[in-house]
Amino acid sequence: MSAVLMDGKAASEEVVGALQVRVAELPFTPRLTFVRVGDDPASAYYVRSKERMARRVGVASETRVLPEGTSQAELLAIVAELNSDPEVDGLLVQLPAPGVDEATVLAAIDPDKDVDGLHPLNVGRLWTGRPGLRPATPSGVIALADRYGVELEGARAVVVGRSNLVGKPLAAMLLERNATVTLAHSRTRDLAAVCRDADVLVAAVGRPGLVTADMVKPGAAVFDVGLSRVDGKVVGDVSPDVAAVAGWLTPMPGGTGLMTVAMVVANTVEAAVRRQGHAA
Amino acid sequence: MSAVLMDGKAASEEVVGALQVRVAELPFTPRLTFVRVGDDPASAYYVRSKERMARRVGVASETRVLPEGTSQAELLAIVAELNSDPEVDGLLVQLPAPGVDEATVLAAIDPDKDVDGLHPLNVGRLWTGRPGLRPATPSGVIALADRYGVELEGARAVVVGRSNLVGKPLAAMLLERNATVTLAHSRTRDLAAVCRDADVLVAAVGRPGLVTADMVKPGAAVFDVGLSRVDGKVVGDVSPDVAAVAGWLTPMPGGTGLMTVAMVVANTVEAAVRRQGHAA
Repeated sequence: MSAVLMDGKAASEEVVGALQVRVAELPFTPRLTFVRVGDDPASAYYVRSKERMARRVGVASETRVLPEGTSQAELLAIVAELNSDPEVDGLLVQLPAPGVDEATVLAAIDPDKDVDGLHPLNVGRLWTGRPGLRPATPSGVIALADRYGVELEGARAVVVGRSNLVGKPLAAMLLERNATVTLAHSRTRDLAAVCRDADVLVAAVGRPGLVTADMVKPGAAVFDVGLSRVDGKVVGDVSPDVAAVAGWLTPMPGGTGLMTVAMVVANTVEAAVRRQGHAA
Repeated sequence: MSAVLMDGKAASEEVVGALQVRVAELPFTPRLTFVRVGDDPASAYYVRSKERMARRVGVASETRVLPEGTSQAELLAIVAELNSDPEVDGLLVQLPAPGVDEATVLAAIDPDKDVDGLHPLNVGRLWTGRPGLRPATPSGVIALADRYGVELEGARAVVVGRSNLVGKPLAAMLLERNATVTLAHSRTRDLAAVCRDADVLVAAVGRPGLVTADMVKPGAAVFDVGLSRVDGKVVGDVSPDVAAVAGWLTPMPGGTGLMTVAMVVANTVEAAVRRQGHAA
């Protein structure tokens, strides 16, 4: 048995295509502004990927690069300015930023421009089933599952990793799709046994090779969201030997990461449409 | 083997005692306002229990009873008035109210007066580990576990029922305490097998006898939060025969319900202290 590879590149291109059609029909151009601090090459890379995809879709995008050493107060002042700028539909502060409290910055972004879906009000909307912008990476996982016909309804889903960015919001989305959801983490005892129960297994920790073949139920759908660099190479949380056991597997790279980028752009279009008062 | 009964009456009296001491030391009187609509006897009963405990603690309490047929707009106007009333520290709208959209009303309450902890901003604060008012029933379950020395750290916890009131926020609180948490519900396949994995099992559905002895791991801590009326008698979700298998069990009545009342009053004191700018 060899797992079906869930192709994030192909799936994200479909999202791009659908968004191009939708944006072309809008009587206005959605605008997305990125803010990033300092010279971290990874941050610069992530922002560039999102900018590039935004432009392809027809979303106007600009990035404000603030110098290393920008204070939290300065960053908050820029967020406030962009919040009140009627031309800005989506606002994404690329974190981490050195010397800045992430929670404070995230809570300062206008929830209706929060294309990362990390403002506490958007978190609460997600968990209570209300409309709101939703985090991109978990939305991408759900979209990939749907594209490949992975059944979520009634499935046992195990999410390893309880970050605000991925693990917790993904648990909410899987629950909404009527999966029985378990959140596992660093304090989980016998992680292997917990994972073996999963029809849908998501690894979102950032520890290379955390999930090995013996931890996977035969035929399960496995989503690799972890990301580490080992000897300059990008590797996920899922060991390559899982492909022999799983029914579906996201490759790394080329899996969930590209969907994250696509979902940020999709959120921008959604935010713009709502802000401009057009029906979604 | 016979389970230790987790006595909600005794535990809630301890909370009352601690709150009495704390309120007596405050230079002001915390104020709690209830709003309820119509003549539903259950609603009236719940509000009376909370009022009674509030008064015992030294919290000033008043209830606005609105006539059956009060429109949502009228209710929202009263909420707005109480939000802006500086004398009101805590505001609780007893739901359900006929003809009123619950989500709309909950989102209209000032989050810092929201002693039910159900405003989406408070939900988001809970899930992201930020300070905020937290739902009373799940807080009561955690407090009972602590009082009886039920270990949560590293435990496998299964919460049956995914309501906004109990199941979902309790999952967040158990996760915060480093339990491995599973949310099960009506679409869960083989609920018995899922429950049998639990060191900590919470039933919060409202279906009498849902959890039977064969679904409980010997020695587990079982919390009964369900509440139904059968032939005029209050019954929980947990079948009485579970007492022979569980290590700990909340009685029904006399278990989690009284803790809920105590936690609403505790939230009021916390809200008042924060609003008045005193250190908690």
